[in-house]
Amino acid sequence: MDEVLDKYSADIIARAADVKALIFDVDGVLTNGGIIYTNSGDELKIFNVKDGQIIQHLIRNNILVGAITGRSSQLVERRCKELKLDFFYQGIKDKFSCLEEVMEKHGLKKNEVAYIGDDIIDLKVITNCGLGIAPSDALEYVKSASNLVTSATGGNGVIREVGDLILASKGLLKEIIDNHLK
Amino acid sequence: MDEVLDKYSADIIARAADVKALIFDVDGVLTNGGIIYTNSGDELKIFNVKDGQIIQHLIRNNILVGAITGRSSQLVERRCKELKLDFFYQGIKDKFSCLEEVMEKHGLKKNEVAYIGDDIIDLKVITNCGLGIAPSDALEYVKSASNLVTSATGGNGVIREVGDLILASKGLLKEIIDNHLK
Amino acid sequence: MDEVLDKYSADIIARAADVKALIFDVDGVLTNGGIIYTNSGDELKIFNVKDGQIIQHLIRNNILVGAITGRSSQLVERRCKELKLDFFYQGIKDKFSCLEEVMEKHGLKKNEVAYIGDDIIDLKVITNCGLGIAPSDALEYVKSASNLVTSATGGNGVIREVGDLILASKGLLKEIIDNHLK
Amino acid sequence: MDEVLDKYSADIIARAADVKALIFDVDGVLTNGGIIYTNSGDELKIFNVKDGQIIQHLIRNNILVGAITGRSSQLVERRCKELKLDFFYQGIKDKFSCLEEVMEKHGLKKNEVAYIGDDIIDLKVITNCGLGIAPSDALEYVKSASNLVTSATGGNGVIREVGDLILASKGLLKEIIDNHLK
Repeated sequence: MDEVLDKYSADIIARAADVKALIFDVDGVLTNGGIIYTNSGDELKIFNVKDGQIIQHLIRNNILVGAITGRSSQLVERRCKELKLDFFYQGIKDKFSCLEEVMEKHGLKKNEVAYIGDDIIDLKVITNCGLGIAPSDALEYVKSASNLVTSATGGNGVIREVGDLILASKGLLKEIIDNHLK
Repeated sequence: MDEVLDKYSADIIARAADVKALIFDVDGVLTNGGIIYTNSGDELKIFNVKDGQIIQHLIRNNILVGAITGRSSQLVERRCKELKLDFFYQGIKDKFSCLEEVMEKHGLKKNEVAYIGDDIIDLKVITNCGLGIAPSDALEYVKSASNLVTSATGGNGVIREVGDLILASKGLLKEIIDNHLK
Repeated sequence: MDEVLDKYSADIIARAADVKALIFDVDGVLTNGGIIYTNSGDELKIFNVKDGQIIQHLIRNNILVGAITGRSSQLVERRCKELKLDFFYQGIKDKFSCLEEVMEKHGLKKNEVAYIGDDIIDLKVITNCGLGIAPSDALEYVKSASNLVTSATGGNGVIREVGDLILASKGLLKEIIDNHLK
Repeated sequence: MDEVLDKYSADIIARAADVKALIFDVDGVLTNGGIIYTNSGDELKIFNVKDGQIIQHLIRNNILVGAITGRSSQLVERRCKELKLDFFYQGIKDKFSCLEEVMEKHGLKKNEVAYIGDDIIDLKVITNCGLGIAPSDALEYVKSASNLVTSATGGNGVIREVGDLILASKGLLKEIIDNHLK
């Protein structure tokens, strides 16, 4: 859809068109950053159905999709499996080393990686990939280090917005939509 | 209530007056799109009491009310039963075929159906019914394909807003309110 | 605190000064209207700590505080007991009859009752008490039937805002605050 | 980061530079004030991952970090332990006495304490420390008694905003960020 690309610069569209892997942080990106505990010792996280929908379209179009997160929980594993992510790493303190490992394993060049993160721990990855992205509610100094700041806040469609951009930049989004209207 | 109709065009009011069935998607429409998981394997969804109230008034006034959703869960079944929906279909990948089945079963014409959806999977239904509706936080390309975009975001009274419109367009809302003031 | 009263008209302040009982609906007033279900059959509601704080000050100052709700759940009972409400009625379909019962039992006159509600079922009570109040996210036709619309949305401090008004209108809020600064 | 300090007055930056202990209330500060109950008797609270990140940086830089809350729950204890807080007190009705105890135990002077609170019960501490802070959604009379009102609302990064301010005022934030970019 042309309208999806209207709000982006030529530079961002060119960067998005190069992307072969979309990688993201979990807390504050795939969720709104809420750490939800119960008295009985359980934990919850809130994901977004719209993010899940676009991830399926990215995967079907051979874009690698994966998550790298500093925390660990069974529920994130459950959501990542349900989304059929190509990879997900939990409990990662050095995200940049993890990214290097991912790039080597999948034969990815720097300009072929888009990464979405929202905090200090994400800065080195954001500044060392082709398309570094921060949600609109990320820290100011994370946003200023990013190529792109989404309209959406974390957990409210950040992945969707970036997924739509990537698919549209490659001319694939219109086809997906047209197929659903047939 | 006349004030309810003030914000709608004559075309929308005419379409609403024809409606004999209000059908909607669940995630992102009846909820805010949150997919909420717990570490212990449970799942939660957040519905809205105001949506529930108007559904009862629609049903009492012989408007069919039903849900068609791509996902499946016991809690959606519980909420749909509590709301006494005339029908609900879960785990539906082809919503348009499901709609055709519903229309045939209940003898509904195209112009008698209002449908609310928020994503690509809803596009064919939205564009093939009398009143296609998207919540204000739906994707842009879903909103532009709809006859009506609600003021409410998903999960925050979308069904209520459409239910009020349908009842008001038929001259039934004022009566309901007057009965509650007696 | 004078500043609390600044935003209210003389009429509203006079009505608030007469109040001997603050009564409210639960869903959409004491909560944001979220009906939260789990797959395992549990239910959740989200209350607000600021509402709870002011209710304690109202009770200590001999204002009756109570809830009347159309739905029923153990968790509302738990919250109402924790708040030490003077009364709470669940599963009430005819709120006006319930109000009449409460007024008779506690010897309350119409002008001594403030009631907060957000839906059609609340209309008769809102229009038959001294100070009828709706949250800012109530239905338009409920707001237009009310004496006062709060700044807060349901579940986000509606009771607090009204409690502050009532205590300030009686000249009690400044004393409470001064006591906490000693 | 200089940009972090841009929005603060010289007075606030000077107060922040003196801080050796950051102390805060839990409900409405570390959370959004939601009191979340389940029918089965459980309780939930929603914390924020960004608050947790900065607390670790404060602790590593020898700023004492602690919580004082009027309510009690196992989940708050769990979150405070996970955050490795230097101290936390639950079920405290007289927060000022608790603060005096903390100050004596840790040899803190008044100007070395920053405190964040949002309600009447916090007023005496807010007005008796070097840097008294309220979230943007605190009561007006709490905000007007504070030295600083954050941009963030309770539970949405209040601790993060203050933590960034304290670290930046001491010239430590730039170093932390630079280390993460190496």
